[in-house]
Amino acid sequence: MTEKKKIQVMENIYDENKRIAEEINSDLTRKGIFCVNIMGSPGAGKTTSIIHLIGRFKKYTPFVIEGDIESDLDTQTLNKLGVKTVQINTGGACHLDAPLVKNAVPQLGADKKGILFIENIGNLVCPAEFVIGEHIKVLVSTVTEGSDKPYKYPLAFEKAGALILNKTDLIPYLDFDLDYFTKGFRALNPTAPLFMVSGKTGEGFAEMAEWLE
Amino acid sequence: MTEKKKIQVMENIYDENKRIAEEINSDLTRKGIFCVNIMGSPGAGKTTSIIHLIGRFKKYTPFVIEGDIESDLDTQTLNKLGVKTVQINTGGACHLDAPLVKNAVPQLGADKKGILFIENIGNLVCPAEFVIGEHIKVLVSTVTEGSDKPYKYPLAFEKAGALILNKTDLIPYLDFDLDYFTKGFRALNPTAPLFMVSGKTGEGFAEMAEWLE
Repeated sequence: MTEKKKIQVMENIYDENKRIAEEINSDLTRKGIFCVNIMGSPGAGKTTSIIHLIGRFKKYTPFVIEGDIESDLDTQTLNKLGVKTVQINTGGACHLDAPLVKNAVPQLGADKKGILFIENIGNLVCPAEFVIGEHIKVLVSTVTEGSDKPYKYPLAFEKAGALILNKTDLIPYLDFDLDYFTKGFRALNPTAPLFMVSGKTGEGFAEMAEWLE
Repeated sequence: MTEKKKIQVMENIYDENKRIAEEINSDLTRKGIFCVNIMGSPGAGKTTSIIHLIGRFKKYTPFVIEGDIESDLDTQTLNKLGVKTVQINTGGACHLDAPLVKNAVPQLGADKKGILFIENIGNLVCPAEFVIGEHIKVLVSTVTEGSDKPYKYPLAFEKAGALILNKTDLIPYLDFDLDYFTKGFRALNPTAPLFMVSGKTGEGFAEMAEWLE
């Protein structure tokens, strides 16, 4: 296959995805549901962040769509907490796309105003390239990943409407350079708020929950 | 585009990739170069592991091909250490593929027997799906990512010819369940050796360097 043909195929996939994402977004907006696309590396603390935020909401009903390659471990955790959660398994695919989310949304049975978290596949690259109907992207980064991540994975940091920097309780045991990290992030994204949190202690999530609501 | 057409396109890309990977592999084997494809999440310690291993080699000359989306930070680090390193920038793509590696190999000027590390893009999903000419895949996982990773990202653990579990110096500050992690890994991969290491202290790398050589 020619390079030109391959590029054409990819463009068609992107265009179709974008059109469906716009449909989802309009539908959710009409229902009064604010949709947050949660991105981050494997083990960054995406589910933990969702749980901490939901527990601090005062006004809105939370809903969750969990994206995983194969398992439903996080959905089990969220269901035990009484949070209405729908599972998407991509069966290998490295990011969620709008068609997958379009199938999942009706299963939520969301009939009141609320905040919908869609937890993307753990991956700092591909999810940033696809809109899935969200009103905002939130990126979860961690101090254990190192301070050079904005320089190495710029798109995710650039597209983030808010940045969570997690695992701050481990800073004393690491050589994490917050100045270098923040400079890299701000060069790509001058305006998105940065919330420093600890999934272990819960520190920092109250401020973010208030900001989201 | 129909679903069938999309699948056909993907199959063509995989087949072409596999053919080129086999060419690279034969070429390296003929030259006496053993090729290691290093995979892992962003910030797992792939470059750090390469540096620790290279420093402990007794018999073979090390070569490195660094895969990054945009930066050349790790190549700078390796060049400063006197290691012959060639940079590949994917310009957004989430994994290395055989055509990219095929272009990079001649730039190494590798004229003696040695071990070539190809550091893949930081991503626990896509790199596992593509062969790039390697003799073995080595996966770098970390205790900070959590003990459920083999269950959530099975393909990378299944394909690994060896597993590095990094950042073990942080275990005292985490709720890492080594039994659960190991059970998940062994269910997918009964035979690959597991090396527990610390990129910070260097512990565990001597054993792995000896095994590799």
